[in-house]
Amino acid sequence: MDEIRLINIKEQIFSKNTNLANEIRERLEARNVFLLNLMSSPGSGKTSLIVETIRRLRNKYSIGVIEGDIDSLVDSEKVAAEGVPAVQLRTGGSCHLDAPMVNAALETMNLDALDFVLVENIGNLVCPASFDTGAALKVMILSVPEGDDKILKYPLMFSMVDCLVVNKMDYLAHSNFNLEILRERMQALNPTAEIIEVSCIKGEGLERWCNWLDSRIAAKFDRSLAGKTL
Amino acid sequence: MDEIRLINIKEQIFSKNTNLANEIRERLEARNVFLLNLMSSPGSGKTSLIVETIRRLRNKYSIGVIEGDIDSLVDSEKVAAEGVPAVQLRTGGSCHLDAPMVNAALETMNLDALDFVLVENIGNLVCPASFDTGAALKVMILSVPEGDDKILKYPLMFSMVDCLVVNKMDYLAHSNFNLEILRERMQALNPTAEIIEVSCIKGEGLERWCNWLDSRIAAKFDRSLAGKTL
Repeated sequence: MDEIRLINIKEQIFSKNTNLANEIRERLEARNVFLLNLMSSPGSGKTSLIVETIRRLRNKYSIGVIEGDIDSLVDSEKVAAEGVPAVQLRTGGSCHLDAPMVNAALETMNLDALDFVLVENIGNLVCPASFDTGAALKVMILSVPEGDDKILKYPLMFSMVDCLVVNKMDYLAHSNFNLEILRERMQALNPTAEIIEVSCIKGEGLERWCNWLDSRIAAKFDRSLAGKTL
Repeated sequence: MDEIRLINIKEQIFSKNTNLANEIRERLEARNVFLLNLMSSPGSGKTSLIVETIRRLRNKYSIGVIEGDIDSLVDSEKVAAEGVPAVQLRTGGSCHLDAPMVNAALETMNLDALDFVLVENIGNLVCPASFDTGAALKVMILSVPEGDDKILKYPLMFSMVDCLVVNKMDYLAHSNFNLEILRERMQALNPTAEIIEVSCIKGEGLERWCNWLDSRIAAKFDRSLAGKTL
């Protein structure tokens, strides 16, 4: 009995979340704001990738960041240090961001002045995969020290992203991580996803990542013709 | 309204979970079975630490393992390869183990033949901290590549463990991880927790970890006098 009641409420939550996520997506599209949802385990390099992306794309796009965190302001301070508006979502105990949280953050931001908003989700490979945030693009990071078998253990996350960024490639020589096996497994699970290898510390691969991201933003809004910042 | 209803159900779930966890703890204590709950991010080395612990303590204790996983049998196959009974809990979508799941696994195990059961929780620093599994000892792993700031971002997990194992110490030279800062923050948040640095790959620190663990099991059951396996 209890369990059935819980499932019903979960379904209500999911469908309410998806409805709001669709609303967010339509609203942002109408306003030419591109929303990216960035997910990974704790410590895979979400904040580092955001900072490196800001540095490379800030001349082209007006960027904002929504930082999800259980506690602490560590990440939003790093982003704010780049001179970019950052909204911190303190979730308290929640292990993922959902559409209402992202919506609340967006409502505090001046969207007319923004082209591109990056959402740093909670460090977790499980629940963030189940909650649509209204983003136009879903990206996950897997870092080399986590191991190439994570795709077997968290298949939902790997199956639903548009891009898999493999970070900390500078650790590859010190590990038994097998890129070929990861690529094969990703090909089987999510063949259309882009796979981009980077090292945020060394700078390798970041140009390719930013070029790909830029092409996705451009394809979405055709900014070369209609863009407000170009 | 919906939110209030959800909170009530959450409270029901937590209190039912805690009651069952206390029952499990009493039942296992009466049967001289020591249950350890091992938590960490994905890829921090839970399975590696379990395998290394089995190799060092198997002559002293009869060991079993409960492997939590969203999907796949990767980890339980590694444990089974050590010749130790492993129960795989496939949680489907759940991002943590709870007392009912651990109880279901324990019911399939021959507890009369076991002294020490290790539970590998789901790779997640958030929700596993909120669900008591009935374990006598709670241990977390933080791996060096994850960074020393994780204690600021996932304070509940760090505050509730009996031991923090810092794994992948072999990466220390290649990272900006600051052990002193981590120790200071842990001292402030959870001063009684043991901190043990290891490298499962190189073998460093594993003897200290196993000696500490052995002392905790011995202190719990006073096996030197009453133990069934010594």
